[in-house]
Amino acid sequence: MKAEIIAIGTEILLGEIIDTNSAHIAQQLPELGIDLFYKTVVGDNLGRIVETFERAWSRSDLIITTGGLGPTDDDMTREGISAVLGETPTVDPDLERRLRGFFAGRGYPMPESNIKQAWLIPSSRALLNPRGTAPGWWVEKDGRIIVSMPGVPPEMERMWTNEVRPELERRSDGQVLVTRTLKTVGIGEGTVDEMARPLYGTPDIGIGTYARADGVHLRIGAKGATREDAWRRIRPVEQEMERIFGSAIWGKDGDTLEGYIADQMHARGATLATMESCTGGLLSSILTDVPGASEYYKGGLITYQTQHKIDAGVPAEVIEEFGVYSPETAKAMARAVCNRLGSDYGIGITGLAGGEPPSDSPPGTVHIGVATPEGTERSLTITMNSGRAAVKRRAVTTALLLLRRALLDEAR
Amino acid sequence: MKAEIIAIGTEILLGEIIDTNSAHIAQQLPELGIDLFYKTVVGDNLGRIVETFERAWSRSDLIITTGGLGPTDDDMTREGISAVLGETPTVDPDLERRLRGFFAGRGYPMPESNIKQAWLIPSSRALLNPRGTAPGWWVEKDGRIIVSMPGVPPEMERMWTNEVRPELERRSDGQVLVTRTLKTVGIGEGTVDEMARPLYGTPDIGIGTYARADGVHLRIGAKGATREDAWRRIRPVEQEMERIFGSAIWGKDGDTLEGYIADQMHARGATLATMESCTGGLLSSILTDVPGASEYYKGGLITYQTQHKIDAGVPAEVIEEFGVYSPETAKAMARAVCNRLGSDYGIGITGLAGGEPPSDSPPGTVHIGVATPEGTERSLTITMNSGRAAVKRRAVTTALLLLRRALLDEAR
Repeated sequence: MKAEIIAIGTEILLGEIIDTNSAHIAQQLPELGIDLFYKTVVGDNLGRIVETFERAWSRSDLIITTGGLGPTDDDMTREGISAVLGETPTVDPDLERRLRGFFAGRGYPMPESNIKQAWLIPSSRALLNPRGTAPGWWVEKDGRIIVSMPGVPPEMERMWTNEVRPELERRSDGQVLVTRTLKTVGIGEGTVDEMARPLYGTPDIGIGTYARADGVHLRIGAKGATREDAWRRIRPVEQEMERIFGSAIWGKDGDTLEGYIADQMHARGATLATMESCTGGLLSSILTDVPGASEYYKGGLITYQTQHKIDAGVPAEVIEEFGVYSPETAKAMARAVCNRLGSDYGIGITGLAGGEPPSDSPPGTVHIGVATPEGTERSLTITMNSGRAAVKRRAVTTALLLLRRALLDEAR
Repeated sequence: MKAEIIAIGTEILLGEIIDTNSAHIAQQLPELGIDLFYKTVVGDNLGRIVETFERAWSRSDLIITTGGLGPTDDDMTREGISAVLGETPTVDPDLERRLRGFFAGRGYPMPESNIKQAWLIPSSRALLNPRGTAPGWWVEKDGRIIVSMPGVPPEMERMWTNEVRPELERRSDGQVLVTRTLKTVGIGEGTVDEMARPLYGTPDIGIGTYARADGVHLRIGAKGATREDAWRRIRPVEQEMERIFGSAIWGKDGDTLEGYIADQMHARGATLATMESCTGGLLSSILTDVPGASEYYKGGLITYQTQHKIDAGVPAEVIEEFGVYSPETAKAMARAVCNRLGSDYGIGITGLAGGEPPSDSPPGTVHIGVATPEGTERSLTITMNSGRAAVKRRAVTTALLLLRRALLDEAR
């Protein structure tokens, strides 16, 4: 099945909103056996919406649209579909009742402009939207399908998961594509590529390498008549990759470094605390994005000022001798926060996040320290000239990787 | 000038990378007097790249592409442009020397596959890329322009800012569009719309309202022969908006709430500290995204465990009487962190961020407290069922708004 995605809205076209809906959908199409060939963004202009729908209708079996289902004159997705199919919308009594009920439940009358959210055309049926007023449309005609969903991400995601995806799964007949991503760290992309090369010729298997913030990812893909069938092809390749890369692989598929750390801490019954300066709490925020982090994460200190570092237990002599931005201070911060918050492991981060791109301001240099229950500390320093936000993000990734390294070394 | 953007790359099409380049470019086109009509994403497939380029060449004056300029067989932007224009690429000696120099400077030989990064066609000239090996292309033929830039965002952004945008500015002849966005808080979108309505008829002025995480934005747009000309039209409308909305407007254009707080703190010579539980450091991370935050931000405590809150000065009686998740505890946290870190103002956040969408797990409830130097505390509670990350983000926005409210009340 050949598919394309059309995102509708001037705000998306002009970059005022980043379109995350398309990625959400696109990521799930391969496993449904659906090939995605194009994605188009078009503004709130009926002529251009119709032109875009006409082309899509001529070349794709499945058209998925997001946005343009609101109640205002700017919302023209229904009008565009109706024009391309040559059908006339009418108010559906069931949808109208539901819509008026939605407003009545909130205690105010429905603005009459909203009535178009109760429209249907002969080829469409409504997709329920319990999170908002705009139902979606499932349109089917001449062997082609158009699925229209709202642009508000929580509404879109729920409609996709509960209504659209299951229906597409039922119709999936072709070959499904299954992928397994193995996440490595500490090896450059060129070397990963060379190490994986012996497996590149495996029949019916596609292999790719991708450089990412958290290391190089290896993706193994296989098609099959069923998911089980595709998995049977992937498994031996995955096992061989695990043999080749060993502990350089830290996770797979949706795994995150913070999730890996959480798992390791839970497994050891150990606890962690953090003391951050230039990352300003980003490390602790990411650690606590993992549900259940409270079981191992003791808490953090954001010691944005030198005196606060000293008050929290960093020896003033260390700061005096090596400077507040130094590997020694980072290690002392890691140790101090273990003592202060009674944790087994500690992370300290100090440095300057640097200026903003694309100017050529001085690069950011960040020192990261890790303290372990055995009483050892280690540190790593990164230098990047890519703007404050990127330096903060990279420093946090590096901190998680350095802690992983310490955990692996202990396990030996 | 009619423009469209084409983003090239299977990883973008399949949602494995979110395309931020297009938004970066699109946001800047209106002020150059360039109308953007379409954005298309196409995978690494020469047939579909050529099809997409052909359509764009037939309908647009300016085509901006990102991605597909790497050295591998998957990178086919140069091949696609050459095919559409019927021109044959040749190796440019200058570009080749530069490319080999890049590799020599890093101490290893150039893989021969990289040679295509030294290609030019008769209608193209190279755009320098000091951040990578892939030069861009500026193509001009039959009164139409194609600008091709690399997909790596820092490389793209630098090339756009230093090479492409200045050239497009020089050629801009038509009407430029200038916009002013006023950011309001505390009023619903419907009411903002009604309050602004008397200005909707102003000649040559477009007005729109947009609901955002940090309140409702009002955008005023005007076209003019020059920027000054357009600004002359906007200014009286902006002044009237300021009269109508008063202190409900907290900022404009690129202003952020954290930047507003930083400005206010600098102006008062005041300091701030934070104690966070469920937001886990996100508030402090966002506060310290503002350059120069160290001048007013005293630091933060992430008291992820109740005992840590008590150790940090939150009275155990308050937690016992009202519960650790309560407005009273949030206020006590705000006060305690003022005392602990010696700041004038304090923010405390406690609660449960809740589960993940799209499941229907219990909603997140978060209590936010603000303490002021006058010895008063205030609190606000939010409840949201939209997943951990969204609840954290909303709690931080609410905390910044609550602090703004306190600052405004003082100023009275």
